[in-house]
Amino acid sequence: MGESKSIYDVIIIGTGIAGCSAGMYCGRFNLKTLVIGELPGGIITTTHLVENYPGILSIGGVEMGEVFLKHAQQFGAEMKFSKVIDVQRCAPPKDAKKLGIFKVKTSSEEFIGKTVIFATGTEHKKLGVPGEKELNAKGVSYCALCDAAFFKEKTVCVVGGGDSSAIEALILAQQCKKVYMFVRKDVLRAEPINYKKVMESKNIEVRLKTEIAEVRGTGKVESVLLKSGAATPGKQEEISMDGVFVAIGHVALSGIAEKLGVALDEHKQIKINRNSETNILGVYAAGDVGDTAFKQAITGASEAVIASYFAYQYLQKNEFGYYCE
Amino acid sequence: MGESKSIYDVIIIGTGIAGCSAGMYCGRFNLKTLVIGELPGGIITTTHLVENYPGILSIGGVEMGEVFLKHAQQFGAEMKFSKVIDVQRCAPPKDAKKLGIFKVKTSSEEFIGKTVIFATGTEHKKLGVPGEKELNAKGVSYCALCDAAFFKEKTVCVVGGGDSSAIEALILAQQCKKVYMFVRKDVLRAEPINYKKVMESKNIEVRLKTEIAEVRGTGKVESVLLKSGAATPGKQEEISMDGVFVAIGHVALSGIAEKLGVALDEHKQIKINRNSETNILGVYAAGDVGDTAFKQAITGASEAVIASYFAYQYLQKNEFGYYCE
Repeated sequence: MGESKSIYDVIIIGTGIAGCSAGMYCGRFNLKTLVIGELPGGIITTTHLVENYPGILSIGGVEMGEVFLKHAQQFGAEMKFSKVIDVQRCAPPKDAKKLGIFKVKTSSEEFIGKTVIFATGTEHKKLGVPGEKELNAKGVSYCALCDAAFFKEKTVCVVGGGDSSAIEALILAQQCKKVYMFVRKDVLRAEPINYKKVMESKNIEVRLKTEIAEVRGTGKVESVLLKSGAATPGKQEEISMDGVFVAIGHVALSGIAEKLGVALDEHKQIKINRNSETNILGVYAAGDVGDTAFKQAITGASEAVIASYFAYQYLQKNEFGYYCE
Repeated sequence: MGESKSIYDVIIIGTGIAGCSAGMYCGRFNLKTLVIGELPGGIITTTHLVENYPGILSIGGVEMGEVFLKHAQQFGAEMKFSKVIDVQRCAPPKDAKKLGIFKVKTSSEEFIGKTVIFATGTEHKKLGVPGEKELNAKGVSYCALCDAAFFKEKTVCVVGGGDSSAIEALILAQQCKKVYMFVRKDVLRAEPINYKKVMESKNIEVRLKTEIAEVRGTGKVESVLLKSGAATPGKQEEISMDGVFVAIGHVALSGIAEKLGVALDEHKQIKINRNSETNILGVYAAGDVGDTAFKQAITGASEAVIASYFAYQYLQKNEFGYYCE
């Protein structure tokens, strides 16, 4: 039996839009709440402008993260900025009528909670080509907003064929001399509003059915080597380049959840139902880490609110074993 | 074959939080969008302060409605304030590969749309006791925020045992001399934060297991007659009263949807899935009219965004018959 520890009603892992929204609602439900994560405000803070969150006409990404953090704290959620490295079930309580609880670990601390909400989000997917890792932060970047200023009047490329790659290209086009968009498929699938802007931009060149084979350079990015394509069979084009912005999507940060036994889908996203419940009793998920088809800040916030409500109901209806090894 | 009419990609019925959120996203998707409904801003405009919409720390209900209307219009959604009285399927197109479309009617106009999103919300549930209808707006009210000022230093009662009845009572307690809360069950199920405030209020008296049998008065509310209870078996207590605020929940405004053939649950709420789809292809629902367990502004906005996304996908993938009788 471990020492007596303060027990949280709910531990929310993630300090982004979803984590903070859950923190706010759990606070309003008078639950003893911990919100813990690495990145204050979450991945939205790497976004330039957000104009599609219903009810907020226009807001900077950094400012939006700050508002959400404040909203959670306003209703009493405790907040810690550290990396969670493991979540375990505690030993089952001796009284069979009581339900088990969870242990959440960082490298230096442990927290005990009756319920857990995973709002761990995603990270940027890597290209996986030679040179990408070696030249990371030496011309290879995953965030135009963060790094565009380093490439003033330079030539850069954005790799990716979705809406976020279009947004990255538009941000870069404001400062760079030339922006290539390398799209693997034969179509750029951007939101119509962004598609139009890309097509009208004078310094963006979209190259469809184009993939990077290698990022080259000594100490910094100097060129990219393309895979040989239909246009130049057998021959690989090399293009001088100062920066490579990778925007090919995200990977769900679900490793800790998976280890706990939470069910994932084929994209490693946490499976949730309309109640934001996972397959494990007392464990919920919300936001980008979940298996929702259309992921937006608003859908993540909503899932978090729903997770909070069902966690609250679950806490009201059950008794818990308070001992954790 | 009817005359040539302008065809909307999507017609959103309802001008509240959900309707406007759908309008905003459909606009961003470059869809020809009509948002049509009776009450600009929706039922949130009858709320005093909203402090639980993630990302907006505190906002008045009226102001919140205005922001959502503006957000929808900002991205090109057309908006009309009139009551929709019927939605019909148009005659099936002659080309079997094409999909049918819908006709949306007000008392004076008709609109044609390829898809429909129901965001029609709810209305206040009635008590159904003698005197309620007769004294409506003569002391009987369904909105403390709208009418509290008429009852300064008066005695009023709130009927209902949920969170919204607690909020109504708290609003009234600021102005009225005395506020009774009549709760049918043996418990007041308010959010803990509001429960505490009610209990601490000096001029709110909560009466559990108490129901109104009749609202009495000539030309205006003068008293309420309670049903005989355990405390006074056989005898019905009559209490002098200036105002009766009914807060016993809401009824989904799903009549038009039901007539179209949209599947409802046992509470007459529109059944939707995680994609905000109904049982009818091309028909979606979002917000309070849906069968979501925990209904909040944020969940309605999210459902609306999801409905917009799936309507957009559906419109991209299909061809439609353009003729409507």
